[in-house]
Amino acid sequence: MLQLTSFAQLAARYRVIFFDAYGVLKNSSGVMSGVNEVLAWLTQSGKELYVVTNDASRSPVAMASAYTHSKYGELIPPSRIISSGLLAKDYLRARVKQGRVAYLGKPSSAFYIESAGLEAVPLAQCGPGEEPQALAWLDDEGFDWFSGLNQAVNLVRRVNIPVVVANSDVAYPINGSELGVAVGSLASMVESVVAKTFVRFGKPDTMMFSYAFACAHANNDSLSKSDVLMVGDTLKTDILGANTFGIDTALVLSGSLLPNHAEVAIAATGIIPTYVCESILT
Amino acid sequence: MLQLTSFAQLAARYRVIFFDAYGVLKNSSGVMSGVNEVLAWLTQSGKELYVVTNDASRSPVAMASAYTHSKYGELIPPSRIISSGLLAKDYLRARVKQGRVAYLGKPSSAFYIESAGLEAVPLAQCGPGEEPQALAWLDDEGFDWFSGLNQAVNLVRRVNIPVVVANSDVAYPINGSELGVAVGSLASMVESVVAKTFVRFGKPDTMMFSYAFACAHANNDSLSKSDVLMVGDTLKTDILGANTFGIDTALVLSGSLLPNHAEVAIAATGIIPTYVCESILT
Amino acid sequence: MLQLTSFAQLAARYRVIFFDAYGVLKNSSGVMSGVNEVLAWLTQSGKELYVVTNDASRSPVAMASAYTHSKYGELIPPSRIISSGLLAKDYLRARVKQGRVAYLGKPSSAFYIESAGLEAVPLAQCGPGEEPQALAWLDDEGFDWFSGLNQAVNLVRRVNIPVVVANSDVAYPINGSELGVAVGSLASMVESVVAKTFVRFGKPDTMMFSYAFACAHANNDSLSKSDVLMVGDTLKTDILGANTFGIDTALVLSGSLLPNHAEVAIAATGIIPTYVCESILT
Amino acid sequence: MLQLTSFAQLAARYRVIFFDAYGVLKNSSGVMSGVNEVLAWLTQSGKELYVVTNDASRSPVAMASAYTHSKYGELIPPSRIISSGLLAKDYLRARVKQGRVAYLGKPSSAFYIESAGLEAVPLAQCGPGEEPQALAWLDDEGFDWFSGLNQAVNLVRRVNIPVVVANSDVAYPINGSELGVAVGSLASMVESVVAKTFVRFGKPDTMMFSYAFACAHANNDSLSKSDVLMVGDTLKTDILGANTFGIDTALVLSGSLLPNHAEVAIAATGIIPTYVCESILT
Repeated sequence: MLQLTSFAQLAARYRVIFFDAYGVLKNSSGVMSGVNEVLAWLTQSGKELYVVTNDASRSPVAMASAYTHSKYGELIPPSRIISSGLLAKDYLRARVKQGRVAYLGKPSSAFYIESAGLEAVPLAQCGPGEEPQALAWLDDEGFDWFSGLNQAVNLVRRVNIPVVVANSDVAYPINGSELGVAVGSLASMVESVVAKTFVRFGKPDTMMFSYAFACAHANNDSLSKSDVLMVGDTLKTDILGANTFGIDTALVLSGSLLPNHAEVAIAATGIIPTYVCESILT
Repeated sequence: MLQLTSFAQLAARYRVIFFDAYGVLKNSSGVMSGVNEVLAWLTQSGKELYVVTNDASRSPVAMASAYTHSKYGELIPPSRIISSGLLAKDYLRARVKQGRVAYLGKPSSAFYIESAGLEAVPLAQCGPGEEPQALAWLDDEGFDWFSGLNQAVNLVRRVNIPVVVANSDVAYPINGSELGVAVGSLASMVESVVAKTFVRFGKPDTMMFSYAFACAHANNDSLSKSDVLMVGDTLKTDILGANTFGIDTALVLSGSLLPNHAEVAIAATGIIPTYVCESILT
Repeated sequence: MLQLTSFAQLAARYRVIFFDAYGVLKNSSGVMSGVNEVLAWLTQSGKELYVVTNDASRSPVAMASAYTHSKYGELIPPSRIISSGLLAKDYLRARVKQGRVAYLGKPSSAFYIESAGLEAVPLAQCGPGEEPQALAWLDDEGFDWFSGLNQAVNLVRRVNIPVVVANSDVAYPINGSELGVAVGSLASMVESVVAKTFVRFGKPDTMMFSYAFACAHANNDSLSKSDVLMVGDTLKTDILGANTFGIDTALVLSGSLLPNHAEVAIAATGIIPTYVCESILT
Repeated sequence: MLQLTSFAQLAARYRVIFFDAYGVLKNSSGVMSGVNEVLAWLTQSGKELYVVTNDASRSPVAMASAYTHSKYGELIPPSRIISSGLLAKDYLRARVKQGRVAYLGKPSSAFYIESAGLEAVPLAQCGPGEEPQALAWLDDEGFDWFSGLNQAVNLVRRVNIPVVVANSDVAYPINGSELGVAVGSLASMVESVVAKTFVRFGKPDTMMFSYAFACAHANNDSLSKSDVLMVGDTLKTDILGANTFGIDTALVLSGSLLPNHAEVAIAATGIIPTYVCESILT
C-alpha cells in the first residue's frame, strides 16, 4: 500500500520548495481552493517558494498574478516563477543576435521572444520565401494547426535555423477527465517528419531546476540540495527531473495521477518519488 | 556510382508490375506526362498492372479514372487499384458488425466505411458522450486539426474501440519541393499521447503486396513472386515493403528521392532496391 | 469484468485454428500438460491446425516433433508450422542468389539459411575484411553478445548488404516469472546504433498470417477469413497482428499475461481480442 | 561551403573552455599528438580549462593523469574533469543512504559508487533473490553481456529500485573506422524490454554544463555564459547540449565527424555549431 505523508509536516523540513503549477497549485479553473492560504502560511514560516513550470504561454508577471492573498498580497514574486519559456528566452538571446523570430503560439507567448530583444512574428505572417532568424514553439493555441504545422515543416526543411521548443509537454489536463495535445507533441511530430533535432526546454530536463536552485543559492549561499523539495503531480516530468537533479520529491495526487493509480504507475515506470501526499492541503 | 537501368528493358522481364502512385505515376498536378502512354504500351505487351498505394482519400473507381488513354480507354481497372483504404474497409467489415464509425478525412474517404456496410460519421459530428463503434483515420484533409485531434485523443481515452489508420504515411509531396504532413503522422502523435496501439495499414507492411499478389495469382496460378516487379519512389515504404514481401524492386527517381541523393540514401538506410531507374519513361 | 469464453465451445465454430506456440501450447518446460490431448481432439473433429510462431531457432521438423500423441501420432505436420524463420528463408532465397550468409544464433537456426541453398557462417567466423552476402539475426543464443553485437555493428556500417531479423520479439518468457532478451531487441539496438533499417519478420506483421491462410486456402478454396481463429497469449504480437489481418482472436491467459492483468492491459493498449479464454484446456 | 575557423584565434576570445575528451583531446591510442602542448599554451594564457565527458569508466584522477606536460606538469586538475560518472555519484549519494549498489562496468568504474559512501557490487555477484539499493550502468566492459543484461532485466522487473545510467552515449569510436556499442545503448535496450524509465546522465542533457559552469563561476563571479566555449566532435551530444545550455560551440573534425561529412550532417540534423574548426591544433 502506498504510504501517504502530510504535506504540512513534510514542508516543515525544507528551506526551499519548488512547485509545479498545473495539478499542484492550479487546475483548469484557476488556483485551487485553499492553495493560496497554504502558500501564505509557508511564506510566513520563512520558506522560499518557486514555481517550476513547463509553460511559455504567458509572462512570469502574468503567471505570478494568480498567487495573491487578501492579507499578504503577492505570494510568489515573478522572479521566482521559473518557466520553460524563460530558458527559451535566454537561448534566443544567446543564439540570435537580432532580427525576426517566427513563433507558434498565442500573442501573450511572444513575450519570451520580445524580452530577448528580438522581433516576434507569428509564423502565419512570414512570407513564403522569408527566412526568419529562428522558429519558436511556444504554445498550442493561437494558430491554425493545419496551415501552421505544414508551414513549420517546410520552413525547417528549407532553411537551417535554430528551432526551439519552449515547452516539452506531451499533453495537459483540461479538466478532471480530458486532455489537450500540448505544443511539445506538435513539435515532436514535425521533428519526426523532417528528421531534425530541435532544442527543447522543460522538465524532465534538469535545466529549470538548476536555474531555480541558482536563484535560491544566490539568496543564501549555505543552501544545499538537501534543503530543497520539489512538489509535482507528474512522474515523467516533475519527479524524474527532480530525481535526476538530486533533490527530494513529493508526488501529489491532485492532478494527472489519480490516487488509486499512483501505486501502479510508480511500479510500472520505475520513477520513484521520495514521498507521496494527497495534495498540498493535507 | 549508382547504375541506372532502363525501365522499358526491365519491365520486359516481368509478367506483373506493381506501381506506387505518387512520385511514380502522378505528382501534385496529376498523372505525369507520358505515363499513360507507358501504361498503355505495357498493357498491350500483356503485362498485368496494379497500383499499390497508401491512400484512403478516394475510392478505387475515382483513383482509376486518372489512368485512361484516348485510344485504349481505361488502363488499370479499379479492381487492380490496391489501396490501404481497401484493407481498412476489410478490417472494419470483419471487426465491426454494424453501427456508426467516426472518421477523420474528406467526405470522399468515407467510401471505405460505407462500402463495409457501416455508417460513416465525421468525428466532429459525434456528440460529446457518443460511443461510435470504431474510429478511422482516413485522410489529413476534411477536418479542423485542433478540434479533431483533441477530440480523437479524448475519444480513445474514454472508450476502448477499434482504431484504424488507413494510411501510415508520414508525409506526402505537395510539389517539387514542399511536403504535407500525412494522416499517419497525425495518428502517431495521438497514439503517443494516449499510449495505445492503433491498427495501421499501408506499405511497408506487406499486406497490400499479399493482397495484390493474391489477385494476380487468382488470374494465373502459375505466377510466382519472381514474376513480379514493384516500382516505387520511396525507400522506407515501397522498397522496404516489397523487399520484405520477397519481390524485385525498381526505385525510380521521379518522386521523393532526387537523383543525386539516391546513392547516399540507399547507403544510409541500408534499404537496397534491386534496380534503380530514372523514371518509368526511360 | 472480463468475460471468459470456453475454448472448446469457441473452437467448434471455426474450421481453421492458428496457435501461437509459447504461452499457448508450450512453456519453458515443453508442451503443457493436456495440450496434445486438446490438439488431438481438434484434429479428430476435423479442424485444420497451424502453429504461427516468432521463432527461427530450429527447423519446422524439430518444432513439430513436440506435438505428438501416443495414439494419433503427429498432430501438426511440419508444413503447418509457420515460423518467422520460414519467411526469412524465402527472403534470403529471393534476395541472395548464392554465397555465404553470416548469422547470429545457434547452429540449429542455420537451417533457415541452408534450406535457402546458401552457406551459413557464424558471424564470429567471418574474417575482418570479409563481405558476406547478407547478415541474418536468428536467435539470441549461440554467440558471445559482446563480440557478436560489436561485430554486427561494424559489418553493417562497412558494407551495405541485406540484413534480416528472423524474429522480431522483444523478450520471451523463461519461466513463470523471468524474461529473456530476444534477438529482436538485440537487432533493434544495433539498428539504432547504425541508423539503418533491417528487414524484420514476425508477428504483429501480417505476413505469417497471409502465409498460413494461403496454405489453408489451397487445401480448401471455399475458406474465408471468418473461418479462422488465432489463439495467442500476447496482445502486441498475436492479437494485434491477427486483428490487422482480419481474423477473429482468442487471447489465452496461460502465458505472458496473468489473468488479473489482462483487463488492464487491454484497456491500456487498446488492443482488443475478440474473445478471452483462460487457456486452451477450458 | 563550410567555413573553418582557427581554433587558436577562437580560443583567444573566451575565458573558460570546456572540452569533450574523445575525438577532441584523445582517440583510442590516448591523448592525440600536440594536444598537451595546446592545453599548456591555453593554461599559460590564463584560460580556465574543463573536460566535460560522458564517461564513468574511471575516476577523475585517472582521467586527469593523461593531460600532463613535461614542463608544466598537470594541465587539467581532477576537480575540472566533469564526467557523467560524477553526476551519477551525486545522485546515488542523494537517493541511496546506505547499502549495496549493483553495477555493470569495469572495477575501476565502481569508484563512482564507493565515493558516494556506498558498497559497489558487480551485478553478477548479486544473489538470485538479493535486492540491492540501486542499479548503476557504468561501462560496457567488465561483465558478460548475455548474463548481465538478462540479469538486469529481471532485477528491475522484480524490485522497484533507482536505476542510474552514468553514460548515455549510444556508441564510441574504437579507432579511425570502428565503433563500440556504449553502455547507454545497452541500458536503452533494457529500458525498452521492461518499459521503465531510468535516470540518465550525460550530454546532451545540460546538467554537466551547469555543473562545470558553477565551478567556473565560483572561481570568478563576474563570469557569464558568453565567456565560455564548448569544444566537441559530436553534434547530438556536445553541440546540442551546449546550444541548449546557451554557450558558444566549436565543432572539431578530429573525431566522429569526418571533414567532408560535417556540412551534410549539420544540414540534416539541424544542430548548428557556432564555429567549425579542423581540430584544436589549428
